[in-house]
Amino acid sequence: MELELLYEGKAKKVYQSDTNENHLILSYKNDATAFNGEKKAQFTGKGRLNNEISSLLFKALEEKGIQSHFIKRLDSVTQMVQKTDIIPLEVVIRNIATGSITKRLGIQEKTPFEPALTELFYKDDSLGDPLINDEHALFLTDITEEELNSIKQKARQVNLALTDIFAAIGVRLVDFKLEFGRNKEGEILLSDEISPDTCRLWDMETNEKLDKDVFRQGTGDLITVYEEILNRLEDQL
Amino acid sequence: MELELLYEGKAKKVYQSDTNENHLILSYKNDATAFNGEKKAQFTGKGRLNNEISSLLFKALEEKGIQSHFIKRLDSVTQMVQKTDIIPLEVVIRNIATGSITKRLGIQEKTPFEPALTELFYKDDSLGDPLINDEHALFLTDITEEELNSIKQKARQVNLALTDIFAAIGVRLVDFKLEFGRNKEGEILLSDEISPDTCRLWDMETNEKLDKDVFRQGTGDLITVYEEILNRLEDQL
Repeated sequence: MELELLYEGKAKKVYQSDTNENHLILSYKNDATAFNGEKKAQFTGKGRLNNEISSLLFKALEEKGIQSHFIKRLDSVTQMVQKTDIIPLEVVIRNIATGSITKRLGIQEKTPFEPALTELFYKDDSLGDPLINDEHALFLTDITEEELNSIKQKARQVNLALTDIFAAIGVRLVDFKLEFGRNKEGEILLSDEISPDTCRLWDMETNEKLDKDVFRQGTGDLITVYEEILNRLEDQL
Repeated sequence: MELELLYEGKAKKVYQSDTNENHLILSYKNDATAFNGEKKAQFTGKGRLNNEISSLLFKALEEKGIQSHFIKRLDSVTQMVQKTDIIPLEVVIRNIATGSITKRLGIQEKTPFEPALTELFYKDDSLGDPLINDEHALFLTDITEEELNSIKQKARQVNLALTDIFAAIGVRLVDFKLEFGRNKEGEILLSDEISPDTCRLWDMETNEKLDKDVFRQGTGDLITVYEEILNRLEDQL
């Protein structure tokens, strides 16, 4: 039976579940994009790797008391999640300065942020996902100030939990991006995915990059490093 | 007697007072710049107009209980102020959407912000004065979270006061930029200037622009509109 495609994003297709109107089926694609979609490629196996990694990480977060939209892995490239309306914010947590922030603010590469730095970006491709502040977020979205504070608090909790999860497999969590959505009951849930597409992950011993930066910068094979993350997580979790 | 020039900015020269080490003499220049210094011109009389307007506005704010670095007007182009170390933040308050924010966030021109929107920019010409959030400000400057909240609170008070002052002369305060500095005692004071260089001012009846946008956009004579603001303020204050 054919599922109804609700939305196709850069990395996933989103289908309506045919058994529960409050569930979605996420199908992870093999596409990789960078620089707001300007650089594109396909990698056989990427969809599987991100689906497996994201499923493991959402389960590990749940075991640490952090709920998300994740319900279960269905097969190698799909997972079932709670249906939410995505809030058009990218919530970025940075533990170490790298990437856009170093150029934008003149901060030296690898400067540690203690405490971790939180940034909000307005999810709008046509505007290039611009950095915004809290007041912009309240103006541009339907969330309340209380909900925004709770989202930022949740992102900081995710940071602590993921930092531990990755440290246990010898990986430094440099920074990552989260998205949140509102379910039918109006609750705000951690949504989207957590994968080497959305996290910067550096090997703790070698500083080797084990994330999408190998594709952005053309410095390594995406599948090899994503496999490395999945293998280490499977051994540990 | 020659005063010691401490700093020359785009719109003012800053001299050490020769009578009090805690005072500075600000000398307003005739230069106008826009687009981070890319567009430049000189306007005879601009220095005088901004010195007079800024002096009147700082005095009017003081009468409404809002302190600043301003001590007194000295002559047509200079004023005496308390010496402060400028905090490298531009604090922008927007009552109505116009200019950069409309393109940056896709907000329609003339959309009202209720409540007024506060934005912080990192004062660094080489970086193009980028927008930052509160956490960036705490990382990039020496101010505490409490001081940042007090700066934003003060900026909102200035907005209410200036909105009234301008409304009384038939002018809508659209948006404006403030800077703050720390004096010898460590107190944070409203500093810099308040003028048609730093405020967007629209005639309430005609919507005519009475500020630096006539120079930015090449749509009118800067001196004529700055004179108009000074004349109306002198009649009222």
